[in-house]
Amino acid sequence: MNAPDNSLLVRQQLYRDMDPHHLTPLWEVLHALVPPRPATPCVPAHWKYDEVRPFLMRAGEAITAEEAVRRVLILENPALRGQSAITQSLYAGLQLILPGEVAPSHRHSQSALRFIVEGSGAYTAVDGERTTMRPGDFIITPSWTFHDHGSDASGPVVWLDGLDIPMVRFFDAGFAENGTARSQQVTRTEGTSMARYGHNMVPVRHDAPFGVTSPIFSYPYERSREALERLERDAPVDEWDGVKLRYVNPLTGGYPMPTMATFMQKLPAGFSGKGWRQTDGAVYSVVEGSGSVEVESGDKRWRFDFAPRDHFVIPSWHTARLSSAGGCMLFSFSDRPVHRALGLLKEERLT
Amino acid sequence: MNAPDNSLLVRQQLYRDMDPHHLTPLWEVLHALVPPRPATPCVPAHWKYDEVRPFLMRAGEAITAEEAVRRVLILENPALRGQSAITQSLYAGLQLILPGEVAPSHRHSQSALRFIVEGSGAYTAVDGERTTMRPGDFIITPSWTFHDHGSDASGPVVWLDGLDIPMVRFFDAGFAENGTARSQQVTRTEGTSMARYGHNMVPVRHDAPFGVTSPIFSYPYERSREALERLERDAPVDEWDGVKLRYVNPLTGGYPMPTMATFMQKLPAGFSGKGWRQTDGAVYSVVEGSGSVEVESGDKRWRFDFAPRDHFVIPSWHTARLSSAGGCMLFSFSDRPVHRALGLLKEERLT
Amino acid sequence: MNAPDNSLLVRQQLYRDMDPHHLTPLWEVLHALVPPRPATPCVPAHWKYDEVRPFLMRAGEAITAEEAVRRVLILENPALRGQSAITQSLYAGLQLILPGEVAPSHRHSQSALRFIVEGSGAYTAVDGERTTMRPGDFIITPSWTFHDHGSDASGPVVWLDGLDIPMVRFFDAGFAENGTARSQQVTRTEGTSMARYGHNMVPVRHDAPFGVTSPIFSYPYERSREALERLERDAPVDEWDGVKLRYVNPLTGGYPMPTMATFMQKLPAGFSGKGWRQTDGAVYSVVEGSGSVEVESGDKRWRFDFAPRDHFVIPSWHTARLSSAGGCMLFSFSDRPVHRALGLLKEERLT
Amino acid sequence: MNAPDNSLLVRQQLYRDMDPHHLTPLWEVLHALVPPRPATPCVPAHWKYDEVRPFLMRAGEAITAEEAVRRVLILENPALRGQSAITQSLYAGLQLILPGEVAPSHRHSQSALRFIVEGSGAYTAVDGERTTMRPGDFIITPSWTFHDHGSDASGPVVWLDGLDIPMVRFFDAGFAENGTARSQQVTRTEGTSMARYGHNMVPVRHDAPFGVTSPIFSYPYERSREALERLERDAPVDEWDGVKLRYVNPLTGGYPMPTMATFMQKLPAGFSGKGWRQTDGAVYSVVEGSGSVEVESGDKRWRFDFAPRDHFVIPSWHTARLSSAGGCMLFSFSDRPVHRALGLLKEERLT
Repeated sequence: MNAPDNSLLVRQQLYRDMDPHHLTPLWEVLHALVPPRPATPCVPAHWKYDEVRPFLMRAGEAITAEEAVRRVLILENPALRGQSAITQSLYAGLQLILPGEVAPSHRHSQSALRFIVEGSGAYTAVDGERTTMRPGDFIITPSWTFHDHGSDASGPVVWLDGLDIPMVRFFDAGFAENGTARSQQVTRTEGTSMARYGHNMVPVRHDAPFGVTSPIFSYPYERSREALERLERDAPVDEWDGVKLRYVNPLTGGYPMPTMATFMQKLPAGFSGKGWRQTDGAVYSVVEGSGSVEVESGDKRWRFDFAPRDHFVIPSWHTARLSSAGGCMLFSFSDRPVHRALGLLKEERLT
Repeated sequence: MNAPDNSLLVRQQLYRDMDPHHLTPLWEVLHALVPPRPATPCVPAHWKYDEVRPFLMRAGEAITAEEAVRRVLILENPALRGQSAITQSLYAGLQLILPGEVAPSHRHSQSALRFIVEGSGAYTAVDGERTTMRPGDFIITPSWTFHDHGSDASGPVVWLDGLDIPMVRFFDAGFAENGTARSQQVTRTEGTSMARYGHNMVPVRHDAPFGVTSPIFSYPYERSREALERLERDAPVDEWDGVKLRYVNPLTGGYPMPTMATFMQKLPAGFSGKGWRQTDGAVYSVVEGSGSVEVESGDKRWRFDFAPRDHFVIPSWHTARLSSAGGCMLFSFSDRPVHRALGLLKEERLT
Repeated sequence: MNAPDNSLLVRQQLYRDMDPHHLTPLWEVLHALVPPRPATPCVPAHWKYDEVRPFLMRAGEAITAEEAVRRVLILENPALRGQSAITQSLYAGLQLILPGEVAPSHRHSQSALRFIVEGSGAYTAVDGERTTMRPGDFIITPSWTFHDHGSDASGPVVWLDGLDIPMVRFFDAGFAENGTARSQQVTRTEGTSMARYGHNMVPVRHDAPFGVTSPIFSYPYERSREALERLERDAPVDEWDGVKLRYVNPLTGGYPMPTMATFMQKLPAGFSGKGWRQTDGAVYSVVEGSGSVEVESGDKRWRFDFAPRDHFVIPSWHTARLSSAGGCMLFSFSDRPVHRALGLLKEERLT
Repeated sequence: MNAPDNSLLVRQQLYRDMDPHHLTPLWEVLHALVPPRPATPCVPAHWKYDEVRPFLMRAGEAITAEEAVRRVLILENPALRGQSAITQSLYAGLQLILPGEVAPSHRHSQSALRFIVEGSGAYTAVDGERTTMRPGDFIITPSWTFHDHGSDASGPVVWLDGLDIPMVRFFDAGFAENGTARSQQVTRTEGTSMARYGHNMVPVRHDAPFGVTSPIFSYPYERSREALERLERDAPVDEWDGVKLRYVNPLTGGYPMPTMATFMQKLPAGFSGKGWRQTDGAVYSVVEGSGSVEVESGDKRWRFDFAPRDHFVIPSWHTARLSSAGGCMLFSFSDRPVHRALGLLKEERLT
């Protein structure tokens, strides 16, 4: 009866002997490497704005935008503390800029999205053009373009930063550079990009200033809300999503950035959505109204009751249900373009 | 000295002998078949609206929209009379609809564009959705979609029809079918398509209702003009084109239809453009303002002084120059998508 | 009761009055312009090689390759005589080159395919590389590349030329240029392109030497036949097509040329195919074996019994059935890529 | 002078207070998150086959293929021990199968490549078709296709497994399933896929059996070597790469799999290559011949002298130089398709 024992000893001796050669037996780890379904280490989490905002304001006192370079509180997934990540592949943070401040010019391989949460009158400058921030606007900083932020507002301005930092780190592909000037020079009037690309028309020549990234680098909330309200009134409401649109790069029909998809959706008053799950984990920013999200994975359950300016994350392959008594507007982003490009996207809608 | 004569006789006998076998010697026609540069049979032409309009009104008295099915005066290229063609590959006509009339429902392989020239309040219905026509609007009827037109206006409404009729005939690929009802049933509120696809956002699911044709089937002039005026003010003016944008299919970044490209351009006041030529012949509709176009090909020259609602055509590889003392707005369309898909597009800008 | 008469008179007066303004009433021609189904003017036709070959040989005596530039007998569709066209959009001809001859270097916008019908040892040179011709080889001359032909063979060499000449003429987009040398300089060893692109591998850099045209400019019959014979033996035979493969551009997965698709198919011995029709008209070259094709359109019927080196054409939307008692190999080409790009492709398989 | 101290204390108190809310200050980690250039944790490493092979053979005695499911020794990057990764995004291992064994059928989201290192006569079965393994063959298991391996060989067969396991784990998108039978049923004759897709021709219908993965799932070494030897003889040798080709998906012109690129290259005898670096880390398998690779990053340097069947890894943005006195053949793979899809690919060739 010591054959198994012996076999075990043989194997362990083998493991020890080959370890110095950087060899490891697959069969001891196969199940974990190729799991039957996604087993993300991430957990759902909720950041209430009335709890986060005081820390942002204290940060405003503790450090200047210029000293901080970017004065951001990172929303770290509770299960990934220390990794600056809200999902395994995405970074999210809330950035504060105070009247008169400047966050100096730099550029990097990482793509960034800004979603304006509070305050009007700050600006971001990309490729020589400034865009003024208003709540609900979705603004892009394309990969490897110089960008700086500043504020002519009378009060604090806060926005959500979404970046592909963990992804670029994972693929060992990050480059960065500081600008020589604090703020870049403005070479185009504000609104030029929107006039060139945002009216369902594009220039006859020179069509892709930012490569695979959308040349409309600012999508105003006013237009997005108009579309969603119109559809809520005139078109069927989806039982899972309410009314949901994805932002588009008008030069390709694809996502605005190669690494991140962005969405705006409206849950009508009284909406009680059905459950769904998807491989791409998603980060939400509540624009208007309140509601709740119920999340489950295996035998674990979460429920977040959200109010305007709150943020929450739904990890990969967690079943989620959205509902709203009074109606609400939600912005969200995920790494869906990567799932699609890699042939990994999977969705399931429960009925 | 009769060797050549003999050789000639031998050849002619050969030609006669093989003719019944449907064989023809290439070397007698090679130069014409493979010309050094495009030698289109088309000529430039100009239709002044104040000359055309009276005929349209007389047509309005001579036949009803319903009897005519489509009450259209075809703009025939003077060099292609009898072929219902404005260039070798494109068809253009002016359609009139009078108050209370209906142009009955049908569908066909041919793609159609409508560009509204005069009057407001008529409508076209596509795939269950009506769109109201206003001057300067660009509206699409996708290939093989039922469509009908009607008018609740108080006066006549006239639009430019642009179709790929000669092209579909050339490729022997035309199908057509009449609808069972005079007008199709309206199943969507007006503006739904624009809300779904026209705000730089698109639905998360079901993305291409018309296949390769743009799901925004109505591009309002209001939006197009806003973009062009903004760019005239804020961005460099092109020395050949003035300020020119092409309409886009937001699901692909490509042309709104697989066979026709459409453009809107603004010539600033005082614009005197440089000459250019291109392989795709183009049809123009003057939206606002007046100006002139000079065209040349070899030693032939044309000059058209155009006013609002005029139409003109610039054939392939004819050099053209646009100018305008007071500024003007021009809509145009061509078969550029085909030139591009077939690897045949060529342009030359003179300096 | 003379109201209709009067109405007719009114209309005819209108037509006369507007005719000088290049205006034509659509309603008089609408039905013909937008037919219920394709009504091609082309007819099916068959060129038996034993009838055509003597004319080719007489042409070989009547004119030199150099004087002719290209010594070709055009296969003209009997219903399109004088148009140098085998379908409305395609040109086909049989080219003869005799030992020691050269067909001098030129280039043009038109794309050309060569399909070798008889004889070995001639060559075509494209972009500095020669390729030796063997029966059944499919060779491409990409748009706007210099090419010349010559022969080191001991006997006559004949190949089928397929070009998009009528298409390029229709779109007014043809350019041409003669080379300065009679034959271009050879700068690459024969077989280099095949080694670079033909082994399911491609160079890491510089990937598209001919733009949208396949960089494999010679597809040897040996390889094509091997694939078809293997599939005839090992895979299900299609009831309409037998075993049919399309040639591919390995850089795109698309057609080898933007304007023409090419196919090789094997009908097994005893094959009696079902009928089908398609919008793209197709030209066939019989490589090996014999068989028959039955074609019908409305109440018209044709039957061609074909032998090796015969050619025949099946026009758009004509129903065809292929059969072969002893098995045969057929090469064919059509303008399918254009039908697909323009959203016009339609096929119907009868059951 | 205690202002800074005070400021520091204020900040640290802020960090402590917000920590329970899963908030972290970006400014403390920004530099590490957005590095000036890639700073991969991976290191170059070399696995000599004569050192690895004895462990493989001992594994062959210690566990059966069936018990192991896959009897593989993972090549772990020395700097990533415990992560089953050879670069941050890729997995590599050497799999052994002994005569008569079967590695049972399963499927998973992960894509796999097999590169045959030693022995002939084992097989892999994918989607009902078996392919026999020979040294130098490159074989694919597409995502989510059932596959099993077995051996009718007389001796051991060893191959390199390359998978995107770390990537799929990172994106939380892995699914897996065991087959119901030990081996899948064979439904197609061996070689059918190659006949359908591997001869620069593809079927007219049903074109993408494996979605975005190449339908040629086995690329025989015989063909690859023929191409490289031809190009070594007839075409210029690249000063960095020697003669290098990438494997292609003939339906798209892209990479064989959405997550991994594969290459075969020949270094001519006497080759002494120039240095280059690239963002994608690459894994090499030496097919024939020997040579050396010098790698540097900052002030660190490595040199590996490699012999047939050796494996080595060059991490992201490490400068490498290849050389070979007698000439050699190298297979390699990397995550380049992802770098390209995400807009992150960067290369630099030193001169």
